[in-house]
Amino acid sequence: MEVPVSHGVSGARPMVGINWGSSNFRAWRIGAEGKILDRVSMPRGVASLDRDGMRACIDELVSRWGPLGDCWISGMIGSNIGWADAGYCEAPSSVADLAAHSLATMIRDTRVRIIPGLACTGPHGGPDVMRGEEVELYGYLANSGAVAGDQFIVLPGTHSKWVHCRDGRIVDFFTSMGGEVFDRLTTQGLLSSVTDGSGTADAAFDEGCERARLSGLNLGSLLFGVRAQAVRAGLGKADAASLLRGLLIGGEVADALRLYPTLADTRVTLIGNPGLSAMFARALAALEIASEIVESEPCCIAGYGALSRAAFAAKARAA
Amino acid sequence: MEVPVSHGVSGARPMVGINWGSSNFRAWRIGAEGKILDRVSMPRGVASLDRDGMRACIDELVSRWGPLGDCWISGMIGSNIGWADAGYCEAPSSVADLAAHSLATMIRDTRVRIIPGLACTGPHGGPDVMRGEEVELYGYLANSGAVAGDQFIVLPGTHSKWVHCRDGRIVDFFTSMGGEVFDRLTTQGLLSSVTDGSGTADAAFDEGCERARLSGLNLGSLLFGVRAQAVRAGLGKADAASLLRGLLIGGEVADALRLYPTLADTRVTLIGNPGLSAMFARALAALEIASEIVESEPCCIAGYGALSRAAFAAKARAA
Repeated sequence: MEVPVSHGVSGARPMVGINWGSSNFRAWRIGAEGKILDRVSMPRGVASLDRDGMRACIDELVSRWGPLGDCWISGMIGSNIGWADAGYCEAPSSVADLAAHSLATMIRDTRVRIIPGLACTGPHGGPDVMRGEEVELYGYLANSGAVAGDQFIVLPGTHSKWVHCRDGRIVDFFTSMGGEVFDRLTTQGLLSSVTDGSGTADAAFDEGCERARLSGLNLGSLLFGVRAQAVRAGLGKADAASLLRGLLIGGEVADALRLYPTLADTRVTLIGNPGLSAMFARALAALEIASEIVESEPCCIAGYGALSRAAFAAKARAA
Repeated sequence: MEVPVSHGVSGARPMVGINWGSSNFRAWRIGAEGKILDRVSMPRGVASLDRDGMRACIDELVSRWGPLGDCWISGMIGSNIGWADAGYCEAPSSVADLAAHSLATMIRDTRVRIIPGLACTGPHGGPDVMRGEEVELYGYLANSGAVAGDQFIVLPGTHSKWVHCRDGRIVDFFTSMGGEVFDRLTTQGLLSSVTDGSGTADAAFDEGCERARLSGLNLGSLLFGVRAQAVRAGLGKADAASLLRGLLIGGEVADALRLYPTLADTRVTLIGNPGLSAMFARALAALEIASEIVESEPCCIAGYGALSRAAFAAKARAA
């Protein structure tokens, strides 16, 4: 069922890349030279699908695009709740290591490669893991070229990843759950009635960042301040959301500096949601740390391409 | 409608105390000498009641006990979502200050005193508030007598209160939301699938306490470790719950020591749920800080009695 592929001048071949997470399925048909020919996005994450449901997703792609050819899938599809457990590749690692650890399997009549997650011993001394984000990271590194010395990439989100790279390889990383804490505390409970919205990078946000940094206190003790200020000082709901974001992101930045002191002397790359990335950029700027915000999708596409090229190169060497 | 009251030898008079919070209504009929004659507990907090619903609760008490006489009500009933806003009494304060700030009003034909909350500028420099807990605190202080120098009382809970007293008066306090963070994160989201139960004071708990204390990291960055250990090191669900509790309570204790350095040299009093209090006691013991666990209900009863006596004494002085 494999379709013949023509290799582009730079080595980028036509392919399909799929990010199949817990909640969402996002697929790209990618032409030679890494051009996006079509994209499909469906709220059909693996957490809500049985194996027939997963087969149906692949069927939909095939009926739309024809045979998928060189197809790479990242995300929770490679976990124990997905199609097959692709395990984890241990950092420090390169894109070639990740490609070599990928799991070749069939979904319906389609041959796919499931990309493993990335594991490391984090800078905090404990285990840390990611699954799905590694494609964006390797794509960004492939696009931007190796940087000499330490380089830091942040993927802001529900579970933000702070990633330490050196010479174009991922050395290690740590995860902060600040985004989830924000979501949970503003959906239900004491702070839900005093906050509104997802926060903005404004003065109340700055106040939260500063409080997180200067107080030396844990989040648990800082959170109630949002409520107390609403009750006693008339803090508005939108400002309360920004203050809460500041406490969480400011604490995250303080932790990152504690774990990665050299981060202070670099230009940090932020990949992801522009609004959230802007908040991280502002928290970093308050400490005079420069950052750049990069779009996520081109990094993803470049990541699938880099994996495909790495696998093709390995096959060529083996032949 | 007021009933004649006979004053006991020690000055404790027959009365009714009601703790009327957001979720629950708990009332005690208290005899002379502070003996509990009857108790009523209903899941009818002010958050779910309109004014007729509140009147109906008082009607139920009257039909059961006859006229309520000297009746004191604490909790969210005195907030802007309750029967009447009783405001806050500013700490440092004594039980007499609190009694003097209470709000006399009628619910149906029953004359009641609504107890204000307690506000302070916390040791963190920001505002802090409590509503309901102040009765237990003043009750404990009335029962145990004034202690010279600093004294610390903790009310472990969803929103734990760490209270600093001196010479039998409440000086200030701070609130930690660690309990709510535990509840929210284990109900939904990433950690809900890897944790089970509410945690116990065991080795995994100790590990969490130590990590919170020694890492110097914010909670946001420590939380994901629970997930990573479950995925990579086979951490069981009950142990994961204990580890999470340890991270939260250990962080709370570290904050308390930062805010109240003299706490290290005292015997800390823990008032509340025995299981949760035992976890706080263990986290303190790891730092060689002694503590005692005290039952909540006798403190409440003593608190209503102390308020009633303070009001009676003030009235006697005025007469």
